[in-house]
Amino acid sequence: MNYNNRVCALFDIKIPIIQAGMVWCSGWKLASAVSEVGGLGLIGAGSMNTDVLRQHIVKCQQATNKTFGVNLPLIYSDIESHIGLILELGVKIVFTSAGSPSKYTSQLKQNGIKVVHVVSGLKYALKAQDAGVDAIVAEGFEAGGHNGRDETTTLCLLQLLANKIDIPVIAAGGIYSGRSMLAAFALGAEGVQIGSRFAVSSESSAHDNFKQAVIDTEEGGTDLTLKSLMPVRMLKNEFYTKVKNAEMNGASAEELKIILGKGRSKKGIFEGDLKEGELEIGQISSLIENRQSAKDIVEEVWQEFLERKAYLSLL
Amino acid sequence: MNYNNRVCALFDIKIPIIQAGMVWCSGWKLASAVSEVGGLGLIGAGSMNTDVLRQHIVKCQQATNKTFGVNLPLIYSDIESHIGLILELGVKIVFTSAGSPSKYTSQLKQNGIKVVHVVSGLKYALKAQDAGVDAIVAEGFEAGGHNGRDETTTLCLLQLLANKIDIPVIAAGGIYSGRSMLAAFALGAEGVQIGSRFAVSSESSAHDNFKQAVIDTEEGGTDLTLKSLMPVRMLKNEFYTKVKNAEMNGASAEELKIILGKGRSKKGIFEGDLKEGELEIGQISSLIENRQSAKDIVEEVWQEFLERKAYLSLL
Repeated sequence: MNYNNRVCALFDIKIPIIQAGMVWCSGWKLASAVSEVGGLGLIGAGSMNTDVLRQHIVKCQQATNKTFGVNLPLIYSDIESHIGLILELGVKIVFTSAGSPSKYTSQLKQNGIKVVHVVSGLKYALKAQDAGVDAIVAEGFEAGGHNGRDETTTLCLLQLLANKIDIPVIAAGGIYSGRSMLAAFALGAEGVQIGSRFAVSSESSAHDNFKQAVIDTEEGGTDLTLKSLMPVRMLKNEFYTKVKNAEMNGASAEELKIILGKGRSKKGIFEGDLKEGELEIGQISSLIENRQSAKDIVEEVWQEFLERKAYLSLL
Repeated sequence: MNYNNRVCALFDIKIPIIQAGMVWCSGWKLASAVSEVGGLGLIGAGSMNTDVLRQHIVKCQQATNKTFGVNLPLIYSDIESHIGLILELGVKIVFTSAGSPSKYTSQLKQNGIKVVHVVSGLKYALKAQDAGVDAIVAEGFEAGGHNGRDETTTLCLLQLLANKIDIPVIAAGGIYSGRSMLAAFALGAEGVQIGSRFAVSSESSAHDNFKQAVIDTEEGGTDLTLKSLMPVRMLKNEFYTKVKNAEMNGASAEELKIILGKGRSKKGIFEGDLKEGELEIGQISSLIENRQSAKDIVEEVWQEFLERKAYLSLL
């Protein structure tokens, strides 16, 4: 059955579930698997140089005829050459994050690309809408990885946007089950973006150690930290404890930068160093109990969404 | 129209909206107004000695024939005499918070009182269920005032509880509109507890300065702080900045205790000292734009809940 709403129409997909573009997790394998089953897969360009990104886009195009997208963190140094590549290879959908949507949106849209921007607050949502993006992802405090400074939760953020934003809203942060997808729709969203569950999927390029660590995570196992640099939600491991202790002792942003160093997320997520790596993941990780295929995740969430929607209407 | 679910049946109410027991806000005026219109009003005993609590319970009984309850923070020093009073005056419903539910639940229940415990995580919910409470309030990170250490948001917390808790779940934290009430129901809750909106209501005993400060609050205007003592969400004012700066400079729990001193929340909420007081309020305060009667709040949320439920079933 094809679902029909503005998010499905915008991306030409049949299930309004988007797989988040995530560093070291979401290459062509994951993105094409999600798009094949009817959702929207995103290649996470944040951990790729332009040559690597080229390989992933080409392989994704070979693996599926369905539409997929690329997630571009706008603060990334390779941004200009990434955009050139996206235009060259005819990518149809771009999700931008971590930066101003005013700089590249019109260039992308003039080339027929659908543009979605990730925001953590109403003020950023209004700016993105003014910049002409086609939709926004509203991402709350419970999301993994980089996060907003105001710490607005997904529940509060969606209420802040209600009746204030005309373009479609995609909810992100804390979306695990079909129940939470339905909650997002109750709040006015027309799609959801799921990260953590797909980070642990069979098709994710994350290291097995990382996947297992997420599966083993218990309630309260993540925290938003590095707030004086750029807030990041991660698993509580040795590296996290080092950062947290430094913060508790009044470390400056400069001192935190030194502790952070370079390549921490690669070390943790891709190389599987559970002690020294930065293990970016969302608050719902304690709910993840096994490794599933991308297909099973999409179908399970979608099935529960439809069942709960029917159930709720009878309450 | 009477709604019929386990929360309505438990409290003998017709609308499953509970007004949170809040220090310096929720006396007999607010509690009786909420109960009169069909929800459940709670007297917040956390800011009352036993004599004051007696006056509020008696006046509430005179003001309404409907059931109302008392919220008892279990760490409060007057707890034994408060419980004696509750038994003496025949209060039918007690919400306990901030302490172990195992100590007083059976005593209260043996006296025919319905007992509800407020929790911030699945492990606490399971303990409360084992202790024999009749329902739990699941309160997320976005809630005002005292808060859990794990920082689990309402959206994540309700998913953690789904299929794990048999007794009714009441959602709290970030509940502003009928949309969010419906979201809570989509996630499995059977009632909602609303704090911030009622703190600003006409019947709230909070100082006008406090109410106006909440109305004037913008996005990102609250923060969870005092984490090394007991996490509290409050408005960002001069007192907050003092605490935050001390924390950034590595202040110990002892040093924070000295900065906090005594009577901070009374000073802020009841006496209206916006500079030196502790202004406890939830993250949705930026959505509150005017002072409403308790009746209007209940009816507005309930009406939107019903409308959105009908709308969602057609999506």
